[in-house]
Amino acid sequence: MPSDMIGKSPRLVLVAGEPAGIGPELCVRIAQQHHLAKIVTLADPETLLQAARAIGLPLRIRDPDADTSLGELAVLPIQQSVPTVFGQADPANARSVIDALLLGARRCLDGQADALVTGPVHKATINTGGIAYRGTTELLAEQAGCYVVMMLAAVISENDPQRQPLRVALATTHLPLRDVSDAITRDGLTRTLRILDADLRDRFGIAQPRITVLGLNPHAGEQGYLGHEEIETITPALDVLRSEGMRLIGPLPADTAFLPRHLLDCDAVLTMYHDQGLPVLKHAGFEDAVNITLGLPYPRVAVDHGTALELAGSGRADPSSLLHAIAVATAMAQTSNSRS
Amino acid sequence: MPSDMIGKSPRLVLVAGEPAGIGPELCVRIAQQHHLAKIVTLADPETLLQAARAIGLPLRIRDPDADTSLGELAVLPIQQSVPTVFGQADPANARSVIDALLLGARRCLDGQADALVTGPVHKATINTGGIAYRGTTELLAEQAGCYVVMMLAAVISENDPQRQPLRVALATTHLPLRDVSDAITRDGLTRTLRILDADLRDRFGIAQPRITVLGLNPHAGEQGYLGHEEIETITPALDVLRSEGMRLIGPLPADTAFLPRHLLDCDAVLTMYHDQGLPVLKHAGFEDAVNITLGLPYPRVAVDHGTALELAGSGRADPSSLLHAIAVATAMAQTSNSRS
Repeated sequence: MPSDMIGKSPRLVLVAGEPAGIGPELCVRIAQQHHLAKIVTLADPETLLQAARAIGLPLRIRDPDADTSLGELAVLPIQQSVPTVFGQADPANARSVIDALLLGARRCLDGQADALVTGPVHKATINTGGIAYRGTTELLAEQAGCYVVMMLAAVISENDPQRQPLRVALATTHLPLRDVSDAITRDGLTRTLRILDADLRDRFGIAQPRITVLGLNPHAGEQGYLGHEEIETITPALDVLRSEGMRLIGPLPADTAFLPRHLLDCDAVLTMYHDQGLPVLKHAGFEDAVNITLGLPYPRVAVDHGTALELAGSGRADPSSLLHAIAVATAMAQTSNSRS
Repeated sequence: MPSDMIGKSPRLVLVAGEPAGIGPELCVRIAQQHHLAKIVTLADPETLLQAARAIGLPLRIRDPDADTSLGELAVLPIQQSVPTVFGQADPANARSVIDALLLGARRCLDGQADALVTGPVHKATINTGGIAYRGTTELLAEQAGCYVVMMLAAVISENDPQRQPLRVALATTHLPLRDVSDAITRDGLTRTLRILDADLRDRFGIAQPRITVLGLNPHAGEQGYLGHEEIETITPALDVLRSEGMRLIGPLPADTAFLPRHLLDCDAVLTMYHDQGLPVLKHAGFEDAVNITLGLPYPRVAVDHGTALELAGSGRADPSSLLHAIAVATAMAQTSNSRS
């Protein structure tokens, strides 16, 4: 980031996501609030206006560079192939959904924006539309040509005045369970932990991150009684990184690591797979968790909910995850800028 | 149970577990409180007296049939091979630890007791002592000659006046993660769900149990994108049981099922494996979870902590899980008796 950005409002790109889902109306809700960041929204203006009418809120579309007031969105227009029908995702618009994501990310890569926030996308519709798409995280990693780490974060105690979040990073993401064990390798864990450690420092401003690493097997393998990956793969990888100065705890049993008193001792938990940690985060996180991609050249934060096609246009969609995503992306951009 | 037991105090057998661990001193703490149930403790009397001296509490050993006062335990003596040294589990005593468990269970099988409560046992020490031991749950299942289901329960909201517990049952228990997928079968799930449904009725008094069943894969397989076990194994098993009247929800993604609003709709959650559900339960459960074995001819409840050898004799061991286990076993025995 150029040094003249320090102290200025971070510039966020907000990609609305699937037009037939709740993404557009959540952007309309965002327009009704003040934000620390300067936000440019990528969507078809017609869809945004349609969403505003559907939920009965005011909306004025402005140029991408405009300074907006309440009820306005600065929009970089994305042309859809066919008009939006809320609740009915149309594969004909798959290309424009993907283009919006890539264009938003490109602005971050080119230094025109400081962070990317993405709304929900409908995986099956995009694939039906003829585009091989596994997920936005993978799409952005490929575009940027780098390894990434998926991390979810949520504030888990409403009574905590510091609003300390629980952060859960994943060593493997969207894999069938039977493929997980073979996907855990020393090289992969080492790469993941290096990215996690670096981004906790650079994007979250944590000087000496403490990371708790889970075992793969129940009871972290119980000294080999319940599996050998802890002994053969995980512990050796951790030992190398510890010798380089990384502060790592584990491998710990999953049901021990998430005890509240253990969470106090760490800044992030690395789980070996999706369902080992996300159920705790979702249970405890008041449903406003956000999905953060680490390892990219820019901060990227996504909402942690789907397109909710059944709610689209009803006005009942809850914007709290998107608001939280914008707040987290803003803070990450500020921390990143202050360190560059 | 004989019908003349109805309305009487349930008779519990309490097995202290590993003598060198915290089990004996937790029994001494139990002796300092009144209980609804009549409790007989299985342990070496010398070890109990030694524990009482170590933590500075009064203890008088009484006959197994005695009506006890505060500071007394009714004890069925189990002779150890070698004296106890707190903190140093001795394989020479492995036989007496196993004998105590089998004898306690035998009293329940023979109708001399209404429920079994077990303290912590040290797996490695028992195996070193020459006894092939996988776990107490498996030992009791083999003795009784029946299939069992492991279920953990904990109260998860201190603010809930009804103290409604979260109950998490497991389709597979202590398996290496790489063996889990192949261990999920239609027959196994069917058997597990029948036991779970029957015991929720018979032992917990729930007239129409609602059970949420998780998928095996992340996002419950996402329509086959992330695995096929939901389509090929889990859903067909659930459909058969639904057609028989069982109230089943799922297969649901694990991170959806544990959202607080979804938990309100069910009496128990069946997870496919250990680390899919127990981290949530332990995180939310104030560390006083208990481990319940379903499917046995009698209720069995265990503490959900280990022998804590490093704490033994220090007086710092927390009896809350054992107190909770006694309370749950008492309630289960009362419900079971009223229905027999």
